Amino acid sequence: MSLSTDPSPETDTGSVDRVLGGLAAAAGELADTAPTDRAAALRAVADALDAQADDLAELAHGETGLPMPRLVGEVARTTGQLRLFADELDEGSWLDAVIDTPDPDAVPVPRPDLRRMQVPLGPVVVFAASNFPFAFSVAGGDTASALAAGCPVVVKAHPGHPRTSRRTAEVVTRAWEGAGMPNGSFALVEGVDTGVRVLSHPVVAAGAFTGSERGGTALARVAAERDVPVPFYAEMGSLNPVFVTTGAVAARGDAIADGYVASFTLGVGQFCTKPGLLFLPNGHGLETRLAAAVEDVAPGRMLVPRIAEASAAGQAALSEVPGVRTIAAAAATGPGPLGSALLVATGARGLLEHRDVLLAECFGPTSIVVEYDRPDEALEAARALGGTLTATVHAESHEWSQVEPLVRTLRDRAGRLVWNGWPTGVAVSRAMHHGGPFPATTQAGHTSVGATAIRRFLRPVVYQDYPAALLPAALRNDNPRGLLRRVDGRFTREALEGG
Amino acid sequence: MSLSTDPSPETDTGSVDRVLGGLAAAAGELADTAPTDRAAALRAVADALDAQADDLAELAHGETGLPMPRLVGEVARTTGQLRLFADELDEGSWLDAVIDTPDPDAVPVPRPDLRRMQVPLGPVVVFAASNFPFAFSVAGGDTASALAAGCPVVVKAHPGHPRTSRRTAEVVTRAWEGAGMPNGSFALVEGVDTGVRVLSHPVVAAGAFTGSERGGTALARVAAERDVPVPFYAEMGSLNPVFVTTGAVAARGDAIADGYVASFTLGVGQFCTKPGLLFLPNGHGLETRLAAAVEDVAPGRMLVPRIAEASAAGQAALSEVPGVRTIAAAAATGPGPLGSALLVATGARGLLEHRDVLLAECFGPTSIVVEYDRPDEALEAARALGGTLTATVHAESHEWSQVEPLVRTLRDRAGRLVWNGWPTGVAVSRAMHHGGPFPATTQAGHTSVGATAIRRFLRPVVYQDYPAALLPAALRNDNPRGLLRRVDGRFTREALEGG
Repeated sequence: MSLSTDPSPETDTGSVDRVLGGLAAAAGELADTAPTDRAAALRAVADALDAQADDLAELAHGETGLPMPRLVGEVARTTGQLRLFADELDEGSWLDAVIDTPDPDAVPVPRPDLRRMQVPLGPVVVFAASNFPFAFSVAGGDTASALAAGCPVVVKAHPGHPRTSRRTAEVVTRAWEGAGMPNGSFALVEGVDTGVRVLSHPVVAAGAFTGSERGGTALARVAAERDVPVPFYAEMGSLNPVFVTTGAVAARGDAIADGYVASFTLGVGQFCTKPGLLFLPNGHGLETRLAAAVEDVAPGRMLVPRIAEASAAGQAALSEVPGVRTIAAAAATGPGPLGSALLVATGARGLLEHRDVLLAECFGPTSIVVEYDRPDEALEAARALGGTLTATVHAESHEWSQVEPLVRTLRDRAGRLVWNGWPTGVAVSRAMHHGGPFPATTQAGHTSVGATAIRRFLRPVVYQDYPAALLPAALRNDNPRGLLRRVDGRFTREALEGG
Repeated sequence: MSLSTDPSPETDTGSVDRVLGGLAAAAGELADTAPTDRAAALRAVADALDAQADDLAELAHGETGLPMPRLVGEVARTTGQLRLFADELDEGSWLDAVIDTPDPDAVPVPRPDLRRMQVPLGPVVVFAASNFPFAFSVAGGDTASALAAGCPVVVKAHPGHPRTSRRTAEVVTRAWEGAGMPNGSFALVEGVDTGVRVLSHPVVAAGAFTGSERGGTALARVAAERDVPVPFYAEMGSLNPVFVTTGAVAARGDAIADGYVASFTLGVGQFCTKPGLLFLPNGHGLETRLAAAVEDVAPGRMLVPRIAEASAAGQAALSEVPGVRTIAAAAATGPGPLGSALLVATGARGLLEHRDVLLAECFGPTSIVVEYDRPDEALEAARALGGTLTATVHAESHEWSQVEPLVRTLRDRAGRLVWNGWPTGVAVSRAMHHGGPFPATTQAGHTSVGATAIRRFLRPVVYQDYPAALLPAALRNDNPRGLLRRVDGRFTREALEGG
C-alpha cells in the first residue's frame, strides 16, 4: 500500500462531540473507581493486546515498514508498561498520602487536622507518535499513565498508522470497558484540526504529546492560551550528545565506533534518543572503522514520506556547512521512502560557529562526529548545548576526576545521564526518567516513560478537619490498604489511633 | 508617610545586570551545596529575622497599616516556614531517590542500573505579594522553598512595602551568605518593568507569584512565550465558597454567622482565602445577626490606595446587580485608604445569571450570601464554580450522606476542603496544599505553602550504569545519610549490597 495516498481523515464533528461528551460524563465515575479496579482493567487491556500481538504487529508493519520482530517486541513493551502501572496502582505510593494531626501549640496559630492525597486531573488528550506505533501511541505510556491516574483519555491518532491505531483502540475499548470501566472513558479521534479542537475544549484538563519540537511547541501554546490553561506535556526529542575521552578511545575505540553507528542508525535513526553528536578527541583514528560501519548499514524504510523528505533535507543542509566533511554516506536504493545513513565530522569550534544547523535535531540515520582538542574544549561545547533527553560519557576509571566537570555540566542539561553505553533503549521502570529541560520537553519536572509518568495527571487535595466518613480510604485513620503514608513527618504503613 | 507619593522605583539597568550575572555565577555552586548546609543557612536566616522581628514589623506597619500583633506573628510564621524547609532538607525524602538495580531478564530488553533523584531547576524569580509583607514576600514561602531546593532567588519586591522589602533582603543576604552560601545567590530588585525583564532573561529557570489573576496570567504568558519557556507558579486568589446546610444553621447558626463575618473581614478581607460566597438555605433567619456582626466591624486601612479603590469599585458593581440586596454596609470613616465591610445577598439562580460580576473575586471585606431552596440548587451552583483555593462545608453528622455529592463536586474545583471551619488561616505544614485548579493557580499540581512547595523548583535526573565515584551521595549503594529510597519497588533506608 502507498502511504502517501492514504492520508488520515478528520473525525467528523458529530463524532468528536460524542467523544467529548463521553469524556465529560465518564470523568467523575472513573475518578471514583478503586485504584485496584483500575489495575485489573489495565491488566485486562494488556492481556487483550498480547492476545492480538501478531495481528497488530502485521498491521503496523504494513503501515510503518518497521520490522516484525521490533513490532512484536514493542507490543510486549507496551503491555509490560500497562502492567507496571497496574502494579503501581496496587502499591499505592503514587497517592502521596500525607497526614498532619492537629497541633494546638503550633506557632503562630493552632494547626488543624490536615490530610492530603493526589486526585485525577480530568480528561487527557494524548497525541500519538509516529515512531512507536504501540509504545508511544494509542495504548502507550501516556494513555497507560493517564488511565492509571483515573483520567479519561482521548487519543489523537498519528496519521502514519491509522489502521493500527483504530484496531488498537477497539481492543483497548473492549477490554477496558469489559473490565467495568465507564463507557466513554477511552476514545480515539483522527486529524490535525480535530486534535487542536479537542485540546482547546473546556472538558480537557491536560495534554500529552510525543513528536517534533515544532508540533509540540505549537500545541503547548494552544494549551497555554486557552481561557482555562491546561498543562501540556510534550516530549520533543533531542540531540543526545555522547562524549568520549582519550582513555576510552585507547581502551575500546573500535567497540565505541561500532556501538555508536549501531545506535544512531537503529530503527533508521527514528528514535528521540538517537545520539546526534559524538565528541571524539582529535587523532582518534576511528574514521576508517566508523566509515566501514556506516557503509554496512542498509537503507531502511522511514515511517512516512514526510519524515524521509525532512531527513534528506537535513542531511543536505549539514553537508553544506563550512568545515563539515563527510565520513560516510550510505547509498539509498530500493522502493518506498528510504533513509540512508550519513555520518559527518566537524571541529568543536565549527560546531559552535554553525550551531543554527549543527545543533538542530536531524531525525533519521544522521549523526555528527565533533572533534575536540582538549577536554576543556569538549566542556565548552557541552556548556553551549540546550536541554536534551540524554547525555552520555565514555571514559575509563583513571579519568573519573577529569570528567567530573563534564558530568556536572551535562546534568544541568539532560534528563538521563548514560555511562559507557548508548542512549537508545529506554527501560520502562520505576527509576526511569525520560524527559529533560526545554526543548527536550515542555515540562522538565516530568517524565513520559516509567512509573512516575502518572504524576503528570494528578493534583493534590487536602482535607481539613474532615470526618472519617467523608474521607477517602487512603486518608482514614485505619489505613485499610496499608499504604505508606507520611504522618507528622514520619513514613509509616501503620494505622492511626482513633479507628 | 503617604503611600501614594512613595512609588517604588525601578532598579537601574546596571544593577539588574549585576543581579542576573550573580544568579548565573552562583547557580552551580548553590546546587552543589550539601542539603544539610542549606538547612543550616536557612536556620541562620530565620534566626536573623527573629532577632529583627520588632523592627521589621514596625517598618511594615508604617508601610502597610497592618496591625503590629499580626505583623509580629507573620514574622514568626515566616521564620517557622524557613525552619520547616530546613527540617525537610535534613530529612531528605524530597530528593525522591529511586533505584532500579539491573535486570538482565527484563522484557523486551535487559534493564540497566538506573538511579534517579531530584536536582534544582536553576535561578528563580519570586514576585512578592502585597498582603503578606513577610510570609509571601522577600523571605516568604516561595523564597524559602526555592533556596531549599538549591535554586538562587531574585525577589521582585512588592511596591506596597519597599522599605520592609529592602531591610528584609539585607537581613537575608547577610545571614545566608554569612552561613557560607554563594555570593549573589539571593538578591532583590524593584519595579514592574524590571520584574518582566528578569522573568524574560535566559538565566531564569522558573517564576513564582502571589497576587491578582490579571497580574499572574500576564506574567504566566511572559514565561510561556520565552524562547525557552519556563514554569510559572502563580497563586491568584479565589472565591472560597462556603456551603451551610439546614442542619448546621439549626445547630449553630449564630456561631456560623459570627465566624463567617470574622473570616471575610479578617485583615480587611485582604486574604486570598477570604470566603467570598456563603451558601445558606432560604429561611435561615440569620440576617439580623449577620448585619449586626458586619456593622460591628471597624473600617480598616487597606494595603495600598489602588487596592482600596478596586475594593470600593467592586462593592459598587455588586450593589448594581439586579436581585442583589445589601445585608449590611459598614460606614468608612478615618484617614488613609480605608476599606469597610459590605455584605450582600442574592439567590442561587441570580448568582448564576450574573456570574460575570458575582463570580469575580472582590479583594477586600466584601462577601455574598447566596440563598438556595434545596440542596440540589446549592449543588448546581457548586458545579458552576471555577477553580478555587478552598471550599468549605458546614453540616451536621446526620447530613453526611446528603452532602457527599457536594463534597465530591467541590473536590474537583478546590485545593483545600475545609469542614465546619473557615478558610482563612493557612497552616504551614507537610500536608498543607495551598493551590487549586485555574484560576486559583496556574499550576494545579503544585502548592505555594507547605513542605511540598519545594517540588516546584526541582526536576528529576536519572543516572544509568554510573560508577559509584561519580554518583551523588543520595544514590550510592552505601546510602550515607540513611535516606528513604525506593529500591526495586520497595521503600527502604537500608544500604544496597556492594559498598
